[in-house]
Amino acid sequence: MIKVKGFKFSGISAGLKKSNNKDLGLIFSEKKCIAHAIFTQNKVVAAPITIGRKIIKKKSIQSIVVNSGSANACTGEEGIVATNKVLDYIASLTNMKSDNFFPSSTGIIGSQLDYKAINKNIPKLIKSLSDKGYKDFAEAITTTDKFLKISHKRIKIGGNFYNFLGIAKGAGMIHPNMATMLCFFLTDLKFEPQIFKTIINEATKKSFNSISVDGDMSTNDTVIGLSNGMGGDATIKKSHKSLPTVSKAINEIFYELASLIVKDAEGGSKFCRINVSGTKSEKSANIIARKVANSLLFKTALFGSDPNWGRIIAAIGSVNIKYINQHKIDISIGKHFLVKNGIGCKKTKIINQLMKKKDIIININLNSGKHSSYMLTNDIGVKYVKFNSYYTT
Amino acid sequence: MIKVKGFKFSGISAGLKKSNNKDLGLIFSEKKCIAHAIFTQNKVVAAPITIGRKIIKKKSIQSIVVNSGSANACTGEEGIVATNKVLDYIASLTNMKSDNFFPSSTGIIGSQLDYKAINKNIPKLIKSLSDKGYKDFAEAITTTDKFLKISHKRIKIGGNFYNFLGIAKGAGMIHPNMATMLCFFLTDLKFEPQIFKTIINEATKKSFNSISVDGDMSTNDTVIGLSNGMGGDATIKKSHKSLPTVSKAINEIFYELASLIVKDAEGGSKFCRINVSGTKSEKSANIIARKVANSLLFKTALFGSDPNWGRIIAAIGSVNIKYINQHKIDISIGKHFLVKNGIGCKKTKIINQLMKKKDIIININLNSGKHSSYMLTNDIGVKYVKFNSYYTT
Repeated sequence: MIKVKGFKFSGISAGLKKSNNKDLGLIFSEKKCIAHAIFTQNKVVAAPITIGRKIIKKKSIQSIVVNSGSANACTGEEGIVATNKVLDYIASLTNMKSDNFFPSSTGIIGSQLDYKAINKNIPKLIKSLSDKGYKDFAEAITTTDKFLKISHKRIKIGGNFYNFLGIAKGAGMIHPNMATMLCFFLTDLKFEPQIFKTIINEATKKSFNSISVDGDMSTNDTVIGLSNGMGGDATIKKSHKSLPTVSKAINEIFYELASLIVKDAEGGSKFCRINVSGTKSEKSANIIARKVANSLLFKTALFGSDPNWGRIIAAIGSVNIKYINQHKIDISIGKHFLVKNGIGCKKTKIINQLMKKKDIIININLNSGKHSSYMLTNDIGVKYVKFNSYYTT
Repeated sequence: MIKVKGFKFSGISAGLKKSNNKDLGLIFSEKKCIAHAIFTQNKVVAAPITIGRKIIKKKSIQSIVVNSGSANACTGEEGIVATNKVLDYIASLTNMKSDNFFPSSTGIIGSQLDYKAINKNIPKLIKSLSDKGYKDFAEAITTTDKFLKISHKRIKIGGNFYNFLGIAKGAGMIHPNMATMLCFFLTDLKFEPQIFKTIINEATKKSFNSISVDGDMSTNDTVIGLSNGMGGDATIKKSHKSLPTVSKAINEIFYELASLIVKDAEGGSKFCRINVSGTKSEKSANIIARKVANSLLFKTALFGSDPNWGRIIAAIGSVNIKYINQHKIDISIGKHFLVKNGIGCKKTKIINQLMKKKDIIININLNSGKHSSYMLTNDIGVKYVKFNSYYTT
């Protein structure tokens, strides 16, 4: 049984979803937590993002309240008021301040949040809190997710075990207005706040910011980490000998959750990691990996198991990076080259077989520097188009 | 009958296509022409682009030789040699210099150009030249095009009629390795070279550089204009009173050809113009229009006739333009608002009906400035994915 000391969870239905599935979730820590959050970079943001950005500045949070079924985005002042009504009410029932509660929403853009339905169910939500309730919470935050996304690790530091738990949902803007990627990360290990921030930022960059399902960005994307320090006396500082182990564990949790999001892509059938190396900076490697990951022609080729390197090299060349030299570009699947020095290699049976796998790794080497990066992506098939063609009508 | 004085055309089959359809085209002017060309901005370019970039510097060209069936891209030094062999041979047969001939290729990336097959057919190609042969030429440059793309205008200046003819092919990287957008523009009106360059650049920006089929960029895209001045004595200079008329005509030809390319998109069923206004610069308006035009979620919604404005506003917000204020964004179809001040409007029957049309205009107003731009695009449907999934295997 997964537990994180001092954290309780609940997930119930407040009737926000037509299906009557769970749509309201709560995470509650016995003690105040240090917190760090990363939000969507979209200029159009949902009401809970506007409010959450202010709350997170406090750096001390005790609870997270999440609804699915409505993104509360493009809802104007009325949307802000609605989220505040929920926070105020849950605060009044728990004798706490509203800004101890961090809000998050996911679902349809444009519909007003039914805060009355939520508030009616808040007492039940609080009553349902349990240290074993993480699955109920994970269920309550899903929209079109086909499976729950949970990743957990335990690490021994100085005789004590400390817990790390990540719960995520969604896959970018996959199923359009049912948008949003959310990740809630909890630990009972204590951190020096700046270190916690650095680790969460770095792990997010290498996981949730390195996935591309359809190149679109949601109005509600949020990653938030809470640490309540209730697992024991250890405090992770820059000098702590367990810092690398802890950092690695958090990175692995985030990477696993991000991979699960890509694997759950609506209509997707394949998972692909695109490694780019030999660049003059990590940033330019990431720009190239992102461009290939977002190429519709590449994604459809992936769906068809077609080792169509012409589309990959055309995508590489289309980015605005001056030092790209087409005559130095290598593209391979495993050890098998598709392109060497910018010239196509003979097709082999092995490559055709590798392309048919569910998990594919494509390596791109620009042979122009020592930096590298990667992106995780999925294919785009007929199912994707069908899912995404008829949504709001 | 369309004619441009002094220009002859031919188009034959050299057996480069499996289908044995026409695949080799020639445009030949009796007199030398001033010329201006615009090439793909892809860092990975085909051999004819590398050679064409050098030839165009001369600014005096007499002929264009084009093949379909092979892009001659990612073919290394061997590809350069192949194109030069073609140019040298046609020059030797016509007693001209090789650099009077401008090369262009379109077709599969990675296969070497069969210059022997081409050269075997060059005598026949020259022999077939005719002032009425523009349709043969237009046919020879097609790959997956479903119809020929030709636009023509006549303008009277000082008692004489002058002719303007544009012939184009393709649709971005629509049908993957059968890539490439090509446009050949010919006129018998004389121009001061700098004016000709400015008009061609501006018309290209507002047409071929304002279309997006799938967001990918080909290794071979080329627009070239030739003016032989054989239509009469008029010379278009900055001070010429007919400059606006002439400029307008060329812009209309380019816009028509660009629209035809989008309408011919493989698997596409709809044509959509995205107007963006109220920005602080034309550039930022274009960035936004381009982002929406390239949004896979928007394109699939277009396919499904779904007025899914959440995807449009999320795409707008995702660009890196700081002054975007979500509370000022309006989105409309004709006079009918989908979004007003960033808040969704009630759905109406009229909007659902408008979305079902083949030609759709979507207006986005940021209400933050006086500039505007637009993009022309198509939908992405099930057919697109099917066309693009199984290509090289």
